[in-house]
Amino acid sequence: MQVDTLIHARWIIPVEPDFVTSAIAPGIALPLASQQWYEHHSLAIDGGRIVDLLPTEFARQKYQGTVTEHLDDHALLPGLINCHTHAAMTLLRGIADDLQLMDWLQNHIWPLEQKWMSEAFVRDGTDLAIAEMIRGGTTCFNDMYFFPEITAAQAVHYGIRASIGLIAIDFPSVWAENSEEYIEKGLALHDQLRHEPLITTAFAPHAPYTVSDEPLKKIRMFADELELPIHMHVHETLHEVEQEQAKTGQRPLQRLQELGLVNPSLLAVHMTQLSDDEIRMMAEAGAHIVHCPESNLKLASGFCPVAKCLDAGINVALGTDGAASNNDLDMFGEMRSAALLAKAVAGDARAVPAMTALRMATINGAKALGLDQVTGSLTIGKAADVIAVDLSNLETQPLYCPVSQIVYAAGRQQVTDVWVAGKRLLNRRNLTTMNIDDLKAKAGEWRQRLAA
Amino acid sequence: MQVDTLIHARWIIPVEPDFVTSAIAPGIALPLASQQWYEHHSLAIDGGRIVDLLPTEFARQKYQGTVTEHLDDHALLPGLINCHTHAAMTLLRGIADDLQLMDWLQNHIWPLEQKWMSEAFVRDGTDLAIAEMIRGGTTCFNDMYFFPEITAAQAVHYGIRASIGLIAIDFPSVWAENSEEYIEKGLALHDQLRHEPLITTAFAPHAPYTVSDEPLKKIRMFADELELPIHMHVHETLHEVEQEQAKTGQRPLQRLQELGLVNPSLLAVHMTQLSDDEIRMMAEAGAHIVHCPESNLKLASGFCPVAKCLDAGINVALGTDGAASNNDLDMFGEMRSAALLAKAVAGDARAVPAMTALRMATINGAKALGLDQVTGSLTIGKAADVIAVDLSNLETQPLYCPVSQIVYAAGRQQVTDVWVAGKRLLNRRNLTTMNIDDLKAKAGEWRQRLAA
Repeated sequence: MQVDTLIHARWIIPVEPDFVTSAIAPGIALPLASQQWYEHHSLAIDGGRIVDLLPTEFARQKYQGTVTEHLDDHALLPGLINCHTHAAMTLLRGIADDLQLMDWLQNHIWPLEQKWMSEAFVRDGTDLAIAEMIRGGTTCFNDMYFFPEITAAQAVHYGIRASIGLIAIDFPSVWAENSEEYIEKGLALHDQLRHEPLITTAFAPHAPYTVSDEPLKKIRMFADELELPIHMHVHETLHEVEQEQAKTGQRPLQRLQELGLVNPSLLAVHMTQLSDDEIRMMAEAGAHIVHCPESNLKLASGFCPVAKCLDAGINVALGTDGAASNNDLDMFGEMRSAALLAKAVAGDARAVPAMTALRMATINGAKALGLDQVTGSLTIGKAADVIAVDLSNLETQPLYCPVSQIVYAAGRQQVTDVWVAGKRLLNRRNLTTMNIDDLKAKAGEWRQRLAA
Repeated sequence: MQVDTLIHARWIIPVEPDFVTSAIAPGIALPLASQQWYEHHSLAIDGGRIVDLLPTEFARQKYQGTVTEHLDDHALLPGLINCHTHAAMTLLRGIADDLQLMDWLQNHIWPLEQKWMSEAFVRDGTDLAIAEMIRGGTTCFNDMYFFPEITAAQAVHYGIRASIGLIAIDFPSVWAENSEEYIEKGLALHDQLRHEPLITTAFAPHAPYTVSDEPLKKIRMFADELELPIHMHVHETLHEVEQEQAKTGQRPLQRLQELGLVNPSLLAVHMTQLSDDEIRMMAEAGAHIVHCPESNLKLASGFCPVAKCLDAGINVALGTDGAASNNDLDMFGEMRSAALLAKAVAGDARAVPAMTALRMATINGAKALGLDQVTGSLTIGKAADVIAVDLSNLETQPLYCPVSQIVYAAGRQQVTDVWVAGKRLLNRRNLTTMNIDDLKAKAGEWRQRLAA
């Protein structure tokens, strides 16, 4: 049978389902990480979808690839899903480090944004981010930033999957005057993007402390009607929780619950402040948490109790946050940081094992975005959002377990190939839809302006 | 004037002295990171030493290099110093993850070591580690493991600088029967290595809970006589501190102090349990701390209060620990983890700024090892332990501050060139003294044996 792409790989880590059939190539029988991958299997891709996953010896007989790849040293895994980005802020990478959150925001980031925010800033910053994400194995990102129509257009143009934030904040910006206009423009953008196959939208009210009740009620209503996620910074710092408590006697999450926002559509980002009761409430409500460990560390925001949340049954996804507070869009680094940090925070080295970190960076992200029928695992019928990681590097030798190597030892530079909906965006480390010299030249121009 | 090597670089970050002369190229005047680097400067190397650091326009007139390098997109910095390794354990990378410390040690690591420990294990594991370290910009490592004479021989053979641990532990091993024999063999090895220019030695009693008073007293006496550092795991976990307190009423550090070991020769590794009094005691004694953030996280050992220690005036160096508990020997990752984690632990995003992390990975390591007259900074007269980092990658754009990019955004794969004592060990990513295919083949053979 003819298919668009046939990939023969040393390892395939589908993430879901855990066992396709136990009869087929069970992987090396190690005590810690058995049955999580297939060896010498192949992935058949046609019409942008995964149509088969089977042992290579059978794949050779059954399929003929228009393109055939032999990835003898590689693991294939689902494309990574970065569930919290401000892509355009990549232009601010490293412009202001090692500052207290409010000093950083009020004296550095916000003035720069105020001065330079424009369609061009968002376009060029998003392009740089998309290139970095593709090169690092990210196939889908969930963004929150000004000029979301530009972010969407660039994602479509370069072929990466994106969930575009329909932003809302009480303050005027160059993009909208007031919360009515934010919501109106958001709804119009949602309509406009409805038929883009790679794009979905999510409401993105900035945070409890920057969006008042009225717009939040409207957003809740529209989110229910349109079945859209709500992507929001929640309990990022102790400071914001204490301020709200001092003002109203209520913690922000409680207010969100009373407004009806704590439900399966909520992606609560950061969540460094969580009581056991709040964890229970989030779990019962089916709300999602987006954990951003490196941003939380860098801004000294606090520690999200990830192991407790997972144990309670909350779906926890991963995000890098913007490059201004990370300073990269590296989901390999974020998986590793999440796995390491969770152990120390829980006081238990068994917390967030490697496979759990990989799930957080893939299927959990897809679930949070309502995209788990589309992406997040190498499951037959899903879109072919696939990445290949070369594990033959010296730094990933000896190899006892490919999942351990991917999470604890590999770097994102070991990603060699990336497909989104079957289209190859990275080919042996080369971007196929973007010109890297142009991107660097643009970054250089912005550097001149912003550092001036 | 003829010199062996002349390197023209886009940036040079000497680490020390902070300002060679303020008149020369002060760097971009950014608020956060001014005066930490030179632009368009050159490094002249002769007879294994740094003989000059000057603006490139003058260097071209003054020097003729037998080898001349133009590193137009690169930062030159001192080679990184990994102050805590068990190099040979690289063969155990990823063989047992996500386990509690004692389960990990007693049921996985120790039985494997017991079964396989040999000269061949140490030789092959150390080779793999040295290759990984060189490729990642590490020019000096401080090791603690069995068969230290093999580790020393491999370091000499491949040209990397090393501080070799003269190990001691109360238990018999394939290397020595009892603490007398450990110390005797250590002293003999120290004598034997005395004239190796790249090698120094340090006593390496394993930990307070595994070495009794008598051998520690002897070690203290010999360390005083020979002016050697003492490299020891101290207060790695709460558990070990509580056990000692329950047994003797004393915390381990107090016992070490009473034995006279808390002094400027002590490198106390881990130190996740530290009271304010103990911090003061360490500072007053001039003892050093080796912080291993990723190992401490992965084994859920606890958090070293790094910012407090630095504020108290303690010299804090960095180490990766062995690859079995990290799972890499990546000092770029370790700098980044140290900077990020310190902020969250201190609750202050200003803690451990990028330049401090770079100092911890260079000059602080040299000070801890008593090598600060030899290495740890690009200072005229010191050995030419130099690395070049290519900052032109998309992932380090735009570039406002090279120090920020090195610590927060760059990966170790951006290290292109490495010199130790003027000898080039990495040339445009190629190892000059090691065969990478042989190393991978050896790692594959050990994998077969160890996983069997």
